[in-house]
Amino acid sequence: MNRLAAIIGGGVIGGGWAARFLLMGWDVNLFDPNPETMRKINEVLSNARRSLPALYEHKLPNEGQLNHVPTIEEAVKSAEWISESVPERLELKQKVLGEVQTHCSPDAIIASSTSGFKPTELQAKSSRPEQIIVAHPFNPVYLCPLAELVGNAATIKNAQTILSGIGMYPLHIRKEIDAHIADRLLEAVWREGLWLIKDGIATTKELDDAIIYGFGLRWAQMGLFETYRVAGGEAGMAHFITQFGPCLKWPWTKLMDVPDLTDDLVQKIATQSDKQSGHHSIRELERIRDDNLVGILRSLKGRDWAAGALLNQQDKLLTTDDIDTNKLLPTINRVIPIDWTDYNGHMNEARYAQVFSDAVDKVMQLVGCDADYIAAGHSYFTAELKINYLNECHAGDGVNVISQILLGEGKKLRVYHQMHHDDGRLLATGDHFLLHVSLTTRASCPPVGTVAQKLPIFAAAQAKLPNPLES
Amino acid sequence: MNRLAAIIGGGVIGGGWAARFLLMGWDVNLFDPNPETMRKINEVLSNARRSLPALYEHKLPNEGQLNHVPTIEEAVKSAEWISESVPERLELKQKVLGEVQTHCSPDAIIASSTSGFKPTELQAKSSRPEQIIVAHPFNPVYLCPLAELVGNAATIKNAQTILSGIGMYPLHIRKEIDAHIADRLLEAVWREGLWLIKDGIATTKELDDAIIYGFGLRWAQMGLFETYRVAGGEAGMAHFITQFGPCLKWPWTKLMDVPDLTDDLVQKIATQSDKQSGHHSIRELERIRDDNLVGILRSLKGRDWAAGALLNQQDKLLTTDDIDTNKLLPTINRVIPIDWTDYNGHMNEARYAQVFSDAVDKVMQLVGCDADYIAAGHSYFTAELKINYLNECHAGDGVNVISQILLGEGKKLRVYHQMHHDDGRLLATGDHFLLHVSLTTRASCPPVGTVAQKLPIFAAAQAKLPNPLES
Repeated sequence: MNRLAAIIGGGVIGGGWAARFLLMGWDVNLFDPNPETMRKINEVLSNARRSLPALYEHKLPNEGQLNHVPTIEEAVKSAEWISESVPERLELKQKVLGEVQTHCSPDAIIASSTSGFKPTELQAKSSRPEQIIVAHPFNPVYLCPLAELVGNAATIKNAQTILSGIGMYPLHIRKEIDAHIADRLLEAVWREGLWLIKDGIATTKELDDAIIYGFGLRWAQMGLFETYRVAGGEAGMAHFITQFGPCLKWPWTKLMDVPDLTDDLVQKIATQSDKQSGHHSIRELERIRDDNLVGILRSLKGRDWAAGALLNQQDKLLTTDDIDTNKLLPTINRVIPIDWTDYNGHMNEARYAQVFSDAVDKVMQLVGCDADYIAAGHSYFTAELKINYLNECHAGDGVNVISQILLGEGKKLRVYHQMHHDDGRLLATGDHFLLHVSLTTRASCPPVGTVAQKLPIFAAAQAKLPNPLES
Repeated sequence: MNRLAAIIGGGVIGGGWAARFLLMGWDVNLFDPNPETMRKINEVLSNARRSLPALYEHKLPNEGQLNHVPTIEEAVKSAEWISESVPERLELKQKVLGEVQTHCSPDAIIASSTSGFKPTELQAKSSRPEQIIVAHPFNPVYLCPLAELVGNAATIKNAQTILSGIGMYPLHIRKEIDAHIADRLLEAVWREGLWLIKDGIATTKELDDAIIYGFGLRWAQMGLFETYRVAGGEAGMAHFITQFGPCLKWPWTKLMDVPDLTDDLVQKIATQSDKQSGHHSIRELERIRDDNLVGILRSLKGRDWAAGALLNQQDKLLTTDDIDTNKLLPTINRVIPIDWTDYNGHMNEARYAQVFSDAVDKVMQLVGCDADYIAAGHSYFTAELKINYLNECHAGDGVNVISQILLGEGKKLRVYHQMHHDDGRLLATGDHFLLHVSLTTRASCPPVGTVAQKLPIFAAAQAKLPNPLES
């Protein structure tokens, strides 16, 4: 049976939580009396379905079941995780949290998505305050891994296990403070940006350009301090700060005042924003944003760094090694990511080679040519790959590969792959011929150790299966 | 003859400017009396050589010549672009700019890299003030495209042409203000971050985590305002601001004060930073950063968005179409980017397919199957690709492909590719068999229009060349 999360409040944030839990295989009870809730949630879910699975090299678990329920009681009574994402008014949140606690298990985790309130404020009227924590996520919740956790340390430890399990980065904020950490940094930028617009120095587009072509690129992979550590160079961080420090006294920011949000200023910003982005609908912008995020996250994955390293950890949880080597080998089971498609809108032909290359890696691991074996100085290099293209597939499509060892003798390894769409169509076949090599001499040589033992047994078992090239 | 830039001051920023100009084919005169200058510059250049060329799908022009010269006079006298990147002290900058103007052409552009000073401050003692502008870049200058330009509008127009030509995004700041735009936003974050550390709320690592797993990912592709426009949804930007506005009055930031940079605070930050990043040397961090940036920029390139769209524009400038179709076809001439390599440290086998796929795209364009032809409803789909792998290559290696049409008859097209390393080694061959298709029916059919006219002539000429499969 699936695990169960309750989502109280089905806006952009609640919807994002629901989508992440569902796609990670949890069932979700959703409470929101707004009649538009299901339409809104389905829009978020549709965005999430086309982006989140593409972050991984393995299929996610089967999507959980979404239940739209009429009461908070029904939503929370059996849930082990309860997300509160109602509007940002303290009294409302306290009232909702009170009702949640009346009906939920004392072992459940109640996590408020509040941007600004402290746990002690949320808990003020609670008889079990330690059960209520802050878990502040970032939009889009189904793609941004960060959740700031504030509150009771034991509850947070359990919350971290759950959130890590659904691919998030749960950051424990050790002392409670208004707006936690990230929103304080964001607020500072927001305020300065408003001044620059009000004073006519810059437009919304110019401010955004200053971010996306400059420090925004840096901050997708190193934060403020690591970036400056690198910029400071060999002289070290203390030297850098001492040198940079005096600038803080210079008139570089508007500190004291908050610009009045007059109708004029609001209209000025809205008009500039329309000019900057109005040629795209919000729905288009959401998808552009999600595709960009998938691409950025996947590029960091290739470097095994920051949010990308997190994806690699999740991939390890998604992979399975209990493959029966006497049968055809199910080597690949994944979704086609957006960065694999070309101008024709279908998977680029080179990515078929990518899928077959990943499939042959899996076969290598099965015969004992794993990371340790490679580190010890031997591997297989591909000598020839022949691909026959039979059908098209697109971003978001689920595909799987069945591989078969046709030859595993001496230094030779031949593997034949059939790549199917999940709808059953055969998309392509791949015929892989590899040579075992010494990584020292870069010359071919027979396998050693585990591979020398495993491969012949393996190959003999596979040889008993029908030969796909003779059918 | 190459165009000539002068770089005054060879630190991290001056070195970054020098690297970008050199790699884009300009000669560079460098003035810096520091005896360590050439060692430092060569370190920056070595980082730039392994990252900048990998942003493009075509080779950059031949690298220009770097001359380390003993005087400002010698550096600037024939230069059309002069970058001033000396330390951030107004009197020093004024003195250096004065000496530059004594010796340079009145038509040259003098661009100060200052983070904080206004053009009028820099120009205070100048007889040709309009010649001096601010061009404030972002580290690493050879990868981050942003340069903030402030000053005389006519000079800035010329500066924009030059900076666009070397792949940058020159943002015209229309009104001068201390610290321009981006550093004001950064300063606001920096100050708030220092408070959070001083008050023991968060460490440098926790602050960086709050950035790289959250809004840093967002800001690599949409800025503050476009991000909030999307988050605000259909209700619109004016609604979002009105709703968000009251938060500005809440105690979310430390506004009034600058934390005193006591020895204790400096040491606290340095110790936290050591703990966070000290297991990597600065040189390692630079390369990790650069590889990450290349990956992020290339992922945005795939989406043709923000800094990635800029790279696509530059690629168009780097491509050439004057190919003699009676000879073997030089279809690819590029550098292997870091995101194409695998755990063995060499180019992943699937990326050979990528190179051949790009090569066949070029052949298709040459026979008239270009974007317009495809938009009108026809294209070629690959039916079979056979790759023979002969030699390894690595990130940063230059490779080129020579393609030959072996068959171009009816709906069939067969293209044979030889991929060479620039050192002359044959890396791989690719044998491509394609079918002409109707994009409406998805079925094969003979070519129409331009392709029907061009391909037979083309194929006949290519058939006269020696057949590589019979040699």
